[in-house]
Amino acid sequence: MTGKAHIFEGNIERWDETIDVIVVGSGFAGLTAAIEAHNSGASTLVLEKMNAAGGNSIISDGGIAAPGTELQKKYGFVDSPDMMYEDMMKAGLGINYPELVRVVVDNARDVFQWSVDYLEVEYLDRIDIFGGHSVHRCYTAKNITGATIIKKQMEKISELGIEVRFKSYLKNLVVDSNERVCGVVVREDYDYKDPEKGKDRYIKAEKGVILATGGFGADVDFRSSQDPRLTGKIGTTNKPFATSEVIKESINIGAMPVQLSHIQLGPWASPDEAGYGVGPMFSEYIVFQYGVIVDPAIGKRFVNELADRKTLSDKLLSIGHPCIGIADSKAVREAGWNIDSGLKRKVVRKFDSLEEVANFYGISAKEIKETIDRFNENFKEGVDRDFGKPLIENSSPICEAPYYAMRLWPKVHFTMGGIRIDADARVISIEGDVIKGLYAAGEVTGGVHGASRLGSCAITECMVFGKIAGKNIVNQIKI
Amino acid sequence: MTGKAHIFEGNIERWDETIDVIVVGSGFAGLTAAIEAHNSGASTLVLEKMNAAGGNSIISDGGIAAPGTELQKKYGFVDSPDMMYEDMMKAGLGINYPELVRVVVDNARDVFQWSVDYLEVEYLDRIDIFGGHSVHRCYTAKNITGATIIKKQMEKISELGIEVRFKSYLKNLVVDSNERVCGVVVREDYDYKDPEKGKDRYIKAEKGVILATGGFGADVDFRSSQDPRLTGKIGTTNKPFATSEVIKESINIGAMPVQLSHIQLGPWASPDEAGYGVGPMFSEYIVFQYGVIVDPAIGKRFVNELADRKTLSDKLLSIGHPCIGIADSKAVREAGWNIDSGLKRKVVRKFDSLEEVANFYGISAKEIKETIDRFNENFKEGVDRDFGKPLIENSSPICEAPYYAMRLWPKVHFTMGGIRIDADARVISIEGDVIKGLYAAGEVTGGVHGASRLGSCAITECMVFGKIAGKNIVNQIKI
Repeated sequence: MTGKAHIFEGNIERWDETIDVIVVGSGFAGLTAAIEAHNSGASTLVLEKMNAAGGNSIISDGGIAAPGTELQKKYGFVDSPDMMYEDMMKAGLGINYPELVRVVVDNARDVFQWSVDYLEVEYLDRIDIFGGHSVHRCYTAKNITGATIIKKQMEKISELGIEVRFKSYLKNLVVDSNERVCGVVVREDYDYKDPEKGKDRYIKAEKGVILATGGFGADVDFRSSQDPRLTGKIGTTNKPFATSEVIKESINIGAMPVQLSHIQLGPWASPDEAGYGVGPMFSEYIVFQYGVIVDPAIGKRFVNELADRKTLSDKLLSIGHPCIGIADSKAVREAGWNIDSGLKRKVVRKFDSLEEVANFYGISAKEIKETIDRFNENFKEGVDRDFGKPLIENSSPICEAPYYAMRLWPKVHFTMGGIRIDADARVISIEGDVIKGLYAAGEVTGGVHGASRLGSCAITECMVFGKIAGKNIVNQIKI
Repeated sequence: MTGKAHIFEGNIERWDETIDVIVVGSGFAGLTAAIEAHNSGASTLVLEKMNAAGGNSIISDGGIAAPGTELQKKYGFVDSPDMMYEDMMKAGLGINYPELVRVVVDNARDVFQWSVDYLEVEYLDRIDIFGGHSVHRCYTAKNITGATIIKKQMEKISELGIEVRFKSYLKNLVVDSNERVCGVVVREDYDYKDPEKGKDRYIKAEKGVILATGGFGADVDFRSSQDPRLTGKIGTTNKPFATSEVIKESINIGAMPVQLSHIQLGPWASPDEAGYGVGPMFSEYIVFQYGVIVDPAIGKRFVNELADRKTLSDKLLSIGHPCIGIADSKAVREAGWNIDSGLKRKVVRKFDSLEEVANFYGISAKEIKETIDRFNENFKEGVDRDFGKPLIENSSPICEAPYYAMRLWPKVHFTMGGIRIDADARVISIEGDVIKGLYAAGEVTGGVHGASRLGSCAITECMVFGKIAGKNIVNQIKI
């Protein structure tokens, strides 16, 4: 069958309800947009398909990047929006929308400060440098979780009297006779496990609709149509409801799809647990830094373990089966991370010797010994002759028992593509025009991160474009 | 504004004309589909928006890849569909649709033989190995141009009595009450330079419509929405009418857009001439093989000159200005290609010394001398210590005057993305369903080539899927 016909206002018998602004989605972007729309004077309703707020945002680690903050000054880090711009463009392989990156970096400091001053979000008193950033500019919300931010946003939402309506699933965007998005058809009492349940409600949005529905990392059909490697055999760090229905409905009414095939995988994931899990702490912070990754079929290394996410994930997928990350006791000790939860859940395993590692994973003991010996020889020369891995400070040969190992198999982590917006957060049509009455922010949009997202830039993006969308929808930029 | 409303059959006053099968586009794919549909017993009409047949196909170099041919046996090359499959998947960085690649490679030999036996296309008596192929399997049409194939196809079209109607621009696909594509709205007497000219005609297609309208390499707005680097500052090897209107109309009625942001650039192009031009013969076959590419701003090399198209183009774009390809007289002699036309059009330039090269392009003479000296030293060691370029057989230091040079700046060459089809050439909707009555073949579709197309696989693809579409639209695969 062809795409759904548009729902025009003229086809609707009556509106069940009228409000100024409808925000779809209650993650970082949606809640920010709702607060801003309300504070700009509009009556605002947030629709959330699940029965709790926060979407995927609550399972993020709460890292947010911003240049030029007071905290950076305190710790003596020199940074600027231009430096962050360069970092994001480099990570995105240059195909980011430059004007959208510019908006993110130019507003990052203010929005971070707003989260501190207005939302009263508490951050750890530290600034980290995550992979791909050229300077320490990543702050982490207290308890190392996005839930810390969502909680404060929901407190503010409650204080302001904004309604967040749960189990409300966006079925259609409604278009009026001026080709303006003027409302939504919502399935009320929506049940994720029984989508036929509930009934439709027609809600008019006088000023328009803001889409903040996130990415489609858990939508196997849609993601594999853009990257056919990402079948159901590949897991995801996302919640299972991270699906594509709103992106599809937006395209259906004319929105331009942008860079949908650029989907980020996490190479630090374990196939032996669901979601993000506890394994990445061992793989990303210990194996990649100090250890090796071995293809069990041949017992050899095949990559610079410190390569970027995209390179590592693509290599793993091209090999076609999980590979084994190995580190020794000295590495665990020097890295300083506690891996007990990984061991407890048997995601990370402990072995008395390399022979035991080989036996457990069905690797040739001879090959693995040769591989480790060769890696260790590299330390004498100070250079990884095989894959160019930078041999980091304090690292050393892999030789101290017990050894630790973990299976590695990428999981879908973030969808860079989505619907097209302009710098004012207005959704742009496939013909390049503004779609009146429709705004979007966050992972549902495409173009900010190009081919690959830099860690800790997503929360920044969500809050920056959430604020812009919430403000502009009320003040109605002239078209 | 939002997307166009669908045109339903019920909205149309009357059909001006009725036929079994409408084929849109008259390149390799369209003409093949039309011949096959006719030979399967359907009355068939080809619509072409320009005033001559062949589209972009006539400016291709007429290279077609096929494994397991008689010609390969004659010359002793062992090949198989599986080997070609591996090559295409590798070039496509693994994100090709495996089932579509399978169809191409499994039918390549037969379709090539069909072009010889049935169309009577003449090929040069040679088999080449183009970059990325693991074996000699590329045949070249006589006179090294796709026009040789198009001419034979048009002769067959004429012999069979199939009408090709020129200046007929597809405005809309028409959908019937069963959500089946049942016809088209065409702008007759279409004038590329005056699109308002002409009038609309409604043509019913009893069996359906085959889209074979090619890629969107010349459509600056559309291509830059998918890869923002590809603004009007980047040229194209395509004809100026390689635009996106049919892809957009397909998406409008519900087709799934696939991998649109994967757009192939030719790194061998010159900014000093339009289109594909005469420069690439010097750059690709002489500079890349024997010479160096230098960034004029710093006078240094920056890449393995024999890297794949994508790597070279991305590097050039990231540098942000044209770079200089340089080779010496010995290289030109040994390569055996005639570069007179390049010199005559001043795309390639001749210099008595490296100092002259430096002066002409504004490069530091000192830097360029150091760069060439270092490159030459590599020959003593037999290895390019800087960028890992394989130093090919018969190559030698760059030292024999006169020297030849050319500016290099990538041009858009091919759009890998497009609308989604299945292995039966049926267009698939964004919801993953078959769109009844709608088929597609060639560059308008996405997924066959993944992230990067291998040279000489496009004509194979066009003919394979053209045949499948032409056959299936008549025999109407059950849905």
